[in-house]
Amino acid sequence: MAKVKEAEKPIILITNDDDITSKGIRSLVEAVRDLGKVVIVAPDNPQSGMGHAITIGQPLRMEKVDLFGDIEAWQTSGTPVDCVKLAVDKILHRKPDICLSGINHGANHSINVLYSGTMSAAMEAAIEGIPSIGFSLLDYAYDADFTAAKQVVHKIVTQVMNMKKKDKHLLLNVNIPALPPEKIKGIKICKQAYAKYEEDFLERLDPHGKKYYWLTGAFTNFDKSKDTDVWALKNNYVSVVPVQFDLTNYTLKSQLEKSNLFK
Amino acid sequence: MAKVKEAEKPIILITNDDDITSKGIRSLVEAVRDLGKVVIVAPDNPQSGMGHAITIGQPLRMEKVDLFGDIEAWQTSGTPVDCVKLAVDKILHRKPDICLSGINHGANHSINVLYSGTMSAAMEAAIEGIPSIGFSLLDYAYDADFTAAKQVVHKIVTQVMNMKKKDKHLLLNVNIPALPPEKIKGIKICKQAYAKYEEDFLERLDPHGKKYYWLTGAFTNFDKSKDTDVWALKNNYVSVVPVQFDLTNYTLKSQLEKSNLFK
Repeated sequence: MAKVKEAEKPIILITNDDDITSKGIRSLVEAVRDLGKVVIVAPDNPQSGMGHAITIGQPLRMEKVDLFGDIEAWQTSGTPVDCVKLAVDKILHRKPDICLSGINHGANHSINVLYSGTMSAAMEAAIEGIPSIGFSLLDYAYDADFTAAKQVVHKIVTQVMNMKKKDKHLLLNVNIPALPPEKIKGIKICKQAYAKYEEDFLERLDPHGKKYYWLTGAFTNFDKSKDTDVWALKNNYVSVVPVQFDLTNYTLKSQLEKSNLFK
Repeated sequence: MAKVKEAEKPIILITNDDDITSKGIRSLVEAVRDLGKVVIVAPDNPQSGMGHAITIGQPLRMEKVDLFGDIEAWQTSGTPVDCVKLAVDKILHRKPDICLSGINHGANHSINVLYSGTMSAAMEAAIEGIPSIGFSLLDYAYDADFTAAKQVVHKIVTQVMNMKKKDKHLLLNVNIPALPPEKIKGIKICKQAYAKYEEDFLERLDPHGKKYYWLTGAFTNFDKSKDTDVWALKNNYVSVVPVQFDLTNYTLKSQLEKSNLFK
């Protein structure tokens, strides 16, 4: 069989929020490098919890790095969303065929989709019309075991790339339980669970006697239905939540339209 | 008529993303101070474009400030979302009756809902079960004229506070055209337009000859329907988009469930 020419290979843009040196992004690259021409554009510093932040008040830096052998890689001083914007406008000078974000060290299920830099990068790409997937492993450790995650990533990315009719705004939030491959029961299409953090700020005193606060909180799931991502993960399934960026609450919209409020 | 006791007044939490010294937040306070007991918790520095970012990697500072006469006000080093979390957990020690965010200097219609710190603060409150409204004026100037905006804010907040059956996750994205009151045609319930920025990074050289990049871009509306926020604003209406934080794409979810993908 003739070898596919480099120029004909689909371009796979890879980013993340943990930073370009993390094991998670390396694992993602290893998982998909046989599926296309990989280009990496990722933050040069940890950007967890950055949500859909963009950098407005200061300029951005960007430099080519030699961290992935023969794969083109750039680190930027920006947020994950900035990375996607820079990749399209300044590095690729075109839209990649797919954008993959992660593999995040830690869960991005349920409400975390809003706080997650990993998912916001994927969402930014989807807004741009680039099919996009965010991957997260339920293990925060810097040396987490990505063995099963890499198999899941390869399977999902292959299938999405092979979809005949693919929504250009396709956006998936994939979470993977921290289990060995043989313990994972399968892949479930889910909805986002209604869950949230019960905040509890830790109060401390600095050496000068002034107070400061650390954000901590307990994750609480209020959603007892069985088609949520939280349920799937608890039951050893990989969760796949299709995500949209139209945040209109259409139910409330028609209620308000029927009422005479604001007239 | 007996005066309502201070303790019986509804608590109105006010925050923003432009920072606690901005004219927008002062205008919001002036617009609603007769409607309840106002408490302000806002960033001590500009947080525009911070989206749903939270501060994880460093601790937060918070101090009481004397900027609003007899109204309790706190500034924090955190993001708008952090401000809401701190307000509930450390300042009010309860949920306020309503949370108002803004008035933002500049538009937060369409896709901007994702990048906006103003809207993310309101969304954080809605997740907590606090009815919440984000307000934005289509004028970026620091000394923008908030005369019409204040009238709109007073009307909408009064009506929302008086709603008999109110969804505790009620969340509205209100944008106000930069016009004198008599030029505003009314208030329209809308959906979020599909629009985006066509990025164009400005490239410059620092004094040491190294490149840096400023994020710029032209706003482009791809949504030609007449029930969008962009249409309403263009036609001199105030736009009100009801917003949700369940990002599940249910259409794509049922498509994927019907397909045999990922089996």
